[in-house]
Parts: sequence; C-alpha cells; structure tokens
Amino acid sequence: MKVPQIVRIAHAVLYVTNLERARRFYVDLLGLNILHERENALYLRGTEDREWTLKLELAPEPGVKHLAYRVADAAELEGLVELAQELGLPYRWESEQDRPRLLRLQDPFGVPVAFYAESQKYPWLLQRYDLHRGPGIQRIDHINVMTPQVEAMTRWYMERLGFRLSEYTEDDEGRIWAAWIHRKGNVHDLALTNGTGPRLHHLAYWMPDAMSIIRACDILAGAMETEAIERGPGRHGVSNAFFLYLRDPDGHRIELYTSDYSTIDPDFEPIRWHLNDPRRQTLWGARTPKSWFLEGSLLEAFEGGFVPTTESELKGLPQHVI
Amino acid sequence: MKVPQIVRIAHAVLYVTNLERARRFYVDLLGLNILHERENALYLRGTEDREWTLKLELAPEPGVKHLAYRVADAAELEGLVELAQELGLPYRWESEQDRPRLLRLQDPFGVPVAFYAESQKYPWLLQRYDLHRGPGIQRIDHINVMTPQVEAMTRWYMERLGFRLSEYTEDDEGRIWAAWIHRKGNVHDLALTNGTGPRLHHLAYWMPDAMSIIRACDILAGAMETEAIERGPGRHGVSNAFFLYLRDPDGHRIELYTSDYSTIDPDFEPIRWHLNDPRRQTLWGARTPKSWFLEGSLLEAFEGGFVPTTESELKGLPQHVI
Amino acid sequence: MKVPQIVRIAHAVLYVTNLERARRFYVDLLGLNILHERENALYLRGTEDREWTLKLELAPEPGVKHLAYRVADAAELEGLVELAQELGLPYRWESEQDRPRLLRLQDPFGVPVAFYAESQKYPWLLQRYDLHRGPGIQRIDHINVMTPQVEAMTRWYMERLGFRLSEYTEDDEGRIWAAWIHRKGNVHDLALTNGTGPRLHHLAYWMPDAMSIIRACDILAGAMETEAIERGPGRHGVSNAFFLYLRDPDGHRIELYTSDYSTIDPDFEPIRWHLNDPRRQTLWGARTPKSWFLEGSLLEAFEGGFVPTTESELKGLPQHVI
Amino acid sequence: MKVPQIVRIAHAVLYVTNLERARRFYVDLLGLNILHERENALYLRGTEDREWTLKLELAPEPGVKHLAYRVADAAELEGLVELAQELGLPYRWESEQDRPRLLRLQDPFGVPVAFYAESQKYPWLLQRYDLHRGPGIQRIDHINVMTPQVEAMTRWYMERLGFRLSEYTEDDEGRIWAAWIHRKGNVHDLALTNGTGPRLHHLAYWMPDAMSIIRACDILAGAMETEAIERGPGRHGVSNAFFLYLRDPDGHRIELYTSDYSTIDPDFEPIRWHLNDPRRQTLWGARTPKSWFLEGSLLEAFEGGFVPTTESELKGLPQHVI
Repeated sequence: MKVPQIVRIAHAVLYVTNLERARRFYVDLLGLNILHERENALYLRGTEDREWTLKLELAPEPGVKHLAYRVADAAELEGLVELAQELGLPYRWESEQDRPRLLRLQDPFGVPVAFYAESQKYPWLLQRYDLHRGPGIQRIDHINVMTPQVEAMTRWYMERLGFRLSEYTEDDEGRIWAAWIHRKGNVHDLALTNGTGPRLHHLAYWMPDAMSIIRACDILAGAMETEAIERGPGRHGVSNAFFLYLRDPDGHRIELYTSDYSTIDPDFEPIRWHLNDPRRQTLWGARTPKSWFLEGSLLEAFEGGFVPTTESELKGLPQHVI
Repeated sequence: MKVPQIVRIAHAVLYVTNLERARRFYVDLLGLNILHERENALYLRGTEDREWTLKLELAPEPGVKHLAYRVADAAELEGLVELAQELGLPYRWESEQDRPRLLRLQDPFGVPVAFYAESQKYPWLLQRYDLHRGPGIQRIDHINVMTPQVEAMTRWYMERLGFRLSEYTEDDEGRIWAAWIHRKGNVHDLALTNGTGPRLHHLAYWMPDAMSIIRACDILAGAMETEAIERGPGRHGVSNAFFLYLRDPDGHRIELYTSDYSTIDPDFEPIRWHLNDPRRQTLWGARTPKSWFLEGSLLEAFEGGFVPTTESELKGLPQHVI
Repeated sequence: MKVPQIVRIAHAVLYVTNLERARRFYVDLLGLNILHERENALYLRGTEDREWTLKLELAPEPGVKHLAYRVADAAELEGLVELAQELGLPYRWESEQDRPRLLRLQDPFGVPVAFYAESQKYPWLLQRYDLHRGPGIQRIDHINVMTPQVEAMTRWYMERLGFRLSEYTEDDEGRIWAAWIHRKGNVHDLALTNGTGPRLHHLAYWMPDAMSIIRACDILAGAMETEAIERGPGRHGVSNAFFLYLRDPDGHRIELYTSDYSTIDPDFEPIRWHLNDPRRQTLWGARTPKSWFLEGSLLEAFEGGFVPTTESELKGLPQHVI
Repeated sequence: MKVPQIVRIAHAVLYVTNLERARRFYVDLLGLNILHERENALYLRGTEDREWTLKLELAPEPGVKHLAYRVADAAELEGLVELAQELGLPYRWESEQDRPRLLRLQDPFGVPVAFYAESQKYPWLLQRYDLHRGPGIQRIDHINVMTPQVEAMTRWYMERLGFRLSEYTEDDEGRIWAAWIHRKGNVHDLALTNGTGPRLHHLAYWMPDAMSIIRACDILAGAMETEAIERGPGRHGVSNAFFLYLRDPDGHRIELYTSDYSTIDPDFEPIRWHLNDPRRQTLWGARTPKSWFLEGSLLEAFEGGFVPTTESELKGLPQHVI
C-alpha cells in the first residue's frame, strides 16, 4: 500500500465566539499578521508563513473545524481518497480561502483533518522586521491532539500516513501516554496526548528565540492579560523546546515554541521518557497545572456538531502536577 | 545627627555544612569565581566584582555570620561607632580576608551587619569572557531580610543609615508587608519581607541578561539538580527584574537578578503595590511557592549562637501562592 | 568652593530640518514614545523615562540647542549661577515644556548646557510592554561631545561640576584623547572625544539587552534604512557596553547602548586604554569607520548661530580605522 | 536514472598543522566537544550531534581531506558507485573512526566528497547543559565551496544528487555567482560561491541563538584572539541567518550560524538576489572584507596532493566590499 506523501502540518481553523476579542488576542497582543479579513473570519500567519496558517471563524460555540496538512502534490490527494475509501472513512472535497481543493476526512479516531496540495502564496514578512509586532511569531510548527487512544492513533498515523516517531512517554507497564510524530524533520507535526478526547490540545507556532517568548509574557502582563498564561515559560524535557502555553479568549490553547532539534536521520532513535520523570514536562522540574492535562477544544464532527469524547482508560495524572 | 555614608551592599558570609557540596553548587554549576580558597572557606565573586562578595565558611550548622556594607571611607566607620554607642547596639572590630577593619554590629532588629571602608582589589574578570563559566554571574546586587518588623526596620535604615525607598507593599489597612530600599541607585541594596525573623531571605547577584538566567536553569537541569530551583524564572512586578530563586545545598536562598531600573532622582516617587496584586510577585501572574514566604537562613547572634526568631503579627500569605 | 550637585544627564534638544522625516526615524523605526507633540516639535522618551528626554525641534539647519542635566534641587541652580558669575560664563533662565526653570549657560569650551531641578513627571511605560514599539528604547544614558580640548574639559567637569572619571584613552606621550566621566554611577553621563569641536558626537539611550540592539538593526534593514547604521553592533572595550551607532536623517548620531558596569565605589580606579589598542573601540577588534571620528553636530552659540569649531592639535586617527 | 538519497551534510575532515593550537581554538575557545582523541587527530561534535562532525587531522599542510554526506542507507551507496562508474568519477572505499564504509569520490568539479550510511552513535549532550562550554555549538549545518563553476556545479548537484535550490545570486546578465542548495529542508547543506577554486570556503555549525554567537565574539576577545574574527556578527540577507565567520589557526574558515527558515515545501520558490544588493551579504548593509571572497582551503586530490585551482571567469567582487 502506498503511503500518501504528507509534507507538514499546514493550518487550523478554529471557531471563536467573538471575533473582536479574538483579534485583540491574536493580532494586537501576539502580533500574528492578518492576511485576509472577512466579516466572519480572520486569516492569520506568522512572519515566515507564505500562506495563512490560522483561520479564526466566528461561530456560536468554540471548537475546531479542522486541522490541515500540506501534501506533496495533487496525486497524493488521490491516494488519500483511496485510503478513505479503503477504510470507510467519511470524506468530501471542501475549499477555503486560497485553497480551492481541500480534502476533508475524519480519521479513525474522530479527528477532522484536511489535506491540500496547492495554495495561493504571498510574500513573506520574515525580513520585513519593521512590520513585526508583538513577540514576532514566525511559522506554524505543530498541533497536539488529546485522545484516549494514543498508542493506536500513533501507530495509524505512522503506518498509514508515514509519520515518524521522535519521542514518547511510557509508564512502567509499557503503556504509551504520549507520542510526538513528524513529517517535516523536527520533533513533531503532531503530538498525541492521553486524555478525554478526541480534542485539540493545542496549536503551536515557532518563535525566533527564547527571548521572544519572554517578550510574549511581558506583553500580556503589560496589557493586564496574565490570565491568558497557562503554563511556562520553560524548557520541555521532551523536544528540548523553550515553550509557553496560552489560552485564547475562547479557551483554545496556543503554544509558543522554539529551539527543538533535527530528526531527519533515517535511523533516528526515538527518545523514551518515563511518565513520572520530573524533567519530562519541564526540564527544570516545574510542575504542570492540571488544566493543561484536562482541558481541550472540541472537534467538529463530519456531519456537524462536535465529535463526542471518551475518557481514557489510562487514568490519573503524572505525579508532577499542581 | 550625621548619617553615615553607606555606598552599597558588599558581601555576605554564609555558614555551610559541607564545603565540597557548596563548591559544586556555587562554583561548578553557578560559575562563581574563586578568589581565595582556604581549608575551611571559599571566597567567591562575580565577573564584575573586584573583591570577594560571598564567603562560604564551613560550620556545624547553616547560618549567616554577617551581611556587610561598603562605606565611603574610614571616617564613616567612626560615625557608625557613634551610632552604635548612642543606641546601645553591640559592636566590635573584626577582620576578614582582604578587609582588615570590619565594624560588626547588631542592628536593633537582630541582624548581624558589618561595615568596611577598605578592601584589597583584584583585576576583574568582566572582559575575560573566556574565563566565564556557567551562567556568568556578574556582581552582588542586594540582600533580603525577613522580619516581623518590616515597617520599623525600613524606617530605621532610612533614617539612621540613609537608605532610600524605591518600592513597598501595603495591605488595605496601610500596613507595610515588604519594602525595597537602596543606597546605590537601583531598586535595592536591602529588601525587607514580612515573616518570622530576623532571618536572611536571600542574597542576590546581578546577571548580564535574562538569557543568562535561562541558562542557569538549563545548567541545573543538565546536572540533575532541578531541586535547587525554588521559584522562577519570571519577571517581578516589583523592581521589573527578571529573576530566578535557587536554594543551595544548605537551604540558603540565592537570587539571580537582572534588568531593574534607575532610582537616582532625588524626587523619585516610591512605587506602591497592593499585597494581593497578582502581578506584584511575578508580573506574569505566576504563583509563588509557600516555601518562598516561609523559609530563611538563621542569623548569627552577637555573642554566638543564632538570633532567636519571632513570628510576625501580620499573619497569612498573599493570595497568589501555591 | 561648593560643587553643584548634578544628578545625571537629562535631555537633549536637537534641531531637525524635517519633522516628519525625523518622526519616522525616531518614532516609527526606533520606537521612542511621543510624550508631547507640537506643530514644530516632538518630545520623546524611552519606556523608563518619566519625563521627555529628547526634543526634536524644527529648524532651518540641523544642530544642538542644548544638552541638559538634572540637578538635585533648586538650590543647586543658584550654585551654578554663582559659578557662571565667578567664571564669567554667559547664562540666562529659559524654559522648556514641563521644565519652567532651566538655567542655560555656555561652558568654557563652548558647549550649550542647561540645568534644571524640577520637571513634570508622567507615568512610565516600563511595564506597559504591550505599548513598547521597535527595539524598546529604555532611558537616556549619556552624551558624547567632540572637542579639541579633551583633557582641559574633562578636568573642568570633574573639578567644577563634580564629575568622576571612569575610563580614558591615552597615547604614548600621555596625552588624553578621550575620557568618560559620570555622576550617576555607571560609566558615563558625558564622554569627551578628541576632534574638531565643540560638537555633539552622539546622544545615547540605554537598551534592555543586546538582543534589542540586534532588533534595531533588523528593523532598519526591514525598512530599507540601512544607511542609518554607521557602526556596530559590537561590544566596546571601553565601558564593556554592547552598542550600535545610528545617524538620523539630519546626521545626528544616536547610540543604542547597554550592559556597562557600576562605578559607585569612591575608590573606583579609572581604566586606562592605549589609543591604539584594537580592543578599545570594539572589544572584538572591528575597525571603526572614519566618519565616526570626523563628523558631529554643531552646537548653538549663546547669542545664536553655531559655535565656531576648532581643529584639534591631536592629529590623526587611531590605527584601527577603516 | 535513480537519484541517490542523500540525507544531509555530515562531516568534514580538515588537515591542521598543529593539533594543540587547533584544540585551543576549537575546544577551549569554541567549546566543541571531543568525542575521540588520537595522537594525530581530534574528533569533535556539537551538543546535538550524536556522531563526530569535524575531524582535525595533523598534516604537514593545511587542507581538506574530504567533505562527507550521510545517505539514507547502504543501497544508496551502491547507487553512488553506479553514478561514479557512469560518469567516470574516481572513487574508492575508505573508512574513518566510527564509519567503516565510506565511499569517497571526486566530483566533476574537483571536490573530494565522501558518503556513508552508517555510523556509531553516541549519547548527545544537548540536554547536558552543565557540560556545554564556550558559546555552545549545537550541530553541523552546512559547507560552502568556492568554485569558478557555480552554475554548472549547482546544476549537477541538483540533477545528480537531488539537491534543491533555496536561494541564488545573479548579475544583470543572468550569470549565477552563488547558490544555496539543500537536502535537509533548511536553507542549505551546500553553498557554492564564485571564486578561484575548487576550495572549501567554510564549514558552518548551527548555534542555539544569536546571543550564543555574540558570546563567541566575547570569548575570543577575552582570550585576546580577535584576529580569528573575520566577518560579523551580522544577519545575512541570504538565508536570514545570524552569522559570524572565524578563521582557525590554519586559516580554515568556520561559520557560526543560526535562525534560517524552512524550505521543505515542494513548490518552494527559490529566492533571487542581485549581486550588488547591499542587503544580500549582510541584511544591515555592512560591507564584507575582501579576504572573505578571496581566501579558502585547498582540497585533497584523489591521488594525493591538492586539487589545482582555476580562476573564475566571473571577475571582480560585489560592490559592497571593504
């Protein structure tokens, strides 16, 4: 069976209940750049992104419309249709601004994913430093999905979609609590975290350096928006990245992320972490707030409404929690 | 009454129970530079310090021998003797390595303080970047003393020793829970924090920049010494400084500190913080661990042994605590 | 003779020939904050400044109206009047926005200096990180005056105005080519550099850290304004500061400066540099462009017009020039 | 014709004439980590490298033994043998420490290249921050070869070895002066620069961030080794990377490099720069020293001795040179 050639995570479409409030958070404070603006939607990107990478769409309830991957070319989309047909996954063709052919399907774990090969490109802003605002968010890096089926879902994305494993978390009984898998050659395009799901855990943007993440904290504090800071800043043990987790006004979780490492060697050996290693979550040993393990964004079901969630059989939180 | 001319905080002498263990922490991990080494003591300094600024002295129990200030010249020491005589404060002449004339007295609040005008100087290491180790600690910045008498002690240091107020914390009833006072023109040489005391809350070193403090976290994590990280990194609301609090192997608390502001204008207006302002402790709203409010180092009494401590009448912790 | 108590350098008034062009440079690109705006003038400040620290005044020709120091209180102004009378220096009372009593005099070396004790204060922007723009300029730090009389002028400011020497440059014959003198306890409030003068060499602002100076370069490059970058970024040997020199659209030189050191000890021993030490100008050995030694801004004479300039008897440039 | 699957640039073997002097530069000052030490050779790596990435080999004259690429697996080495046979390129099997099967060939432009599929791995030092020394060099990033045949060589590596073009420099007549080509998904594994050649222009290591490159400058200055700094620090227009060029004691050029961008999209459109765009070499407009265009390291010929060099028909230097 041929595995479709996925290039990288490419965009997310988030439902937000108040576009002005969302604009203040994402544009005025975080400095994401508006590529398109519609009455009911904002299309945003980082300074390196040549396409929009986050669409905020006005909706009655917060949620996730879909998570999209870029594939190598149009032929790969046909391969994905065949895969959907083979496995009986619901799929249809949709379109979004700049992306006329978007193959949307629901993966076997309930996640609404979309794939596209072609998108309108725009001049980047990377070297227009005079236009950078806020902490200077650079490019989309990855998404993280909470699921009660971490192990099965990891296996499926690896076998069926060609993802490669970079790191994983295991307990004493060999059960997998989290996995980081990638297509693009750094630590992940997609992370899978144990918990009630499927839900979106977070969407992450790459930052120019650790100081730009410190600056994000300062900017939020200056604007009296410290409630938005859920966790960090800190350095992950997993991925070695410097990170900060924020919650947007609708509760969607956004990670600012930088300085992980290369995983392109074909014999790269995945890194195993024990569930209760205090340096796994934060290399410096800081505890993780419970909300980080418990809360997430609902995913849109293929026929509308939200995908129902299921609790995980892997109960309990890691020990290093507050 | 003439006020003695104090220049700045100058050094601390800490009792440690295991000099090798202390050396690993202060020298191998934090990269403080050894100026002198004796069988029972290490004399350490930052890269900008032209004198030793921390003496670690082997002792059966952890504690603080004294906290020392530099005065403008020898005449000021005489003024301090007069002050001690006037107020009936116990005092005597002592000496330390490089500082043959050290006036030691016990302030009215039980704190063992020492004053000197002259010290042997050594070439600094500031521009010997090839010799910097660890996070590159630069110079002594301030000390913080816990006391049940914050308001009275603040007043005394201001009136008798010419300290100037930069910031303070007040509750709804106008009671002072903490104060930051200085001689050298930045936020503080001495901070006073409400709590059981008198005890040393911490000794702080100035760092070159925020990233050097991030590096301190990474180094401790690399060495599997994350237990030493008590609080931070973060940015203080008070002082605007980027900070990290560490605990040495004997429990002494060390702050790495950078980027506060100038207070030299004679009409500088002190900044008032409300006790429960969540941005006061950490501008980003992060909670402070209880240990930070509760634990400190015992101070040596003038006639030996440790100064007995008293609980504060200001009970309870700020709300923003974990 | 009593020496008037000067606190620090406080502001500069620069004549610019096009206020819109100047605004683009100082406000849009460098991110200085507008405190007041008049038809013919802009009053600017850094994020820590509680007063304006740079006035740009529209004029037919570029130049420097005056350079101002803050004194401890009104009595010190009287002391300065007495000094002016004793020495026969021209002086008069002037006023500027927020500073109703400004004593302006011409020092014996032709420099128009002003002194004030009181100014209207405004809430600072230091912790309003959400309002910081561009590289985040923090506070005024120092000025540098080119003069053919470095040694005499240094001596005069030290003896008559209580400045203290931190560093100096000497040639083999013991002639002083440059001196750094201060009141506020860091490396300088005033630097004196050999050359045709008197002219203003530059005005310097303190920056939060070295990366904010790198960001200034990137912003100017993004805006296609790299012509404004004259020298740097780099680290000075003198002062150890990380620096960048810019030229504004009228040719005034602005330095972005950070991370020097403390000079408050009364027995601080000034640092001597040899004129041709390649690490003096830039610790990394980079050469300095000739324009940096040759060009400066004309100073307004007491009775109007510009102070005529004289060539220095100390001819030639340091060897490490391009 | 099947194109062999190259993963990334992997190592360089440099001949040095004094191993102690080279060790001081690479290990003591730059902080590269010694993986193996032999009487006549040092095997070095960055903190992220799981293999050695630079071998310094004692030799009577400075030069480059070979430049090596990692291929996907052993079968790809057979493909390379076929390619060599088809094109009549000299080749042989060699071995180096940890890499028993190294296919060495001479490309059609005279460059000694080697390929391997397997190497002994070692635990990385990335999260052993306590062991990082100097500026903290992270991993090998790319090499740059000077050649009078930039266009032909670029084409050959793209067509025969599957490299992809990220950026290039063109003059008014459409002639290619430089090209940046990659396999690993960032700006380059291999850059080709016009000039007398073939010679090695430089070997580049990835750094954690821009401040670590500033630290490299400071460390060299602290050690009085500023002669080693040839160019920078600065930001390239090409690649957007923050950079510093150093010359080792034998004249080999080393670049410290960070913060370029992703090129993995299959429809990534290469960026064209005009030869005389002042922002191309350094985004900030700084001029490049002539030595950077004129000097390089000789390459070992297949049968011994050095590959003879040829001048380029593209004469002259870019305008923005000092």
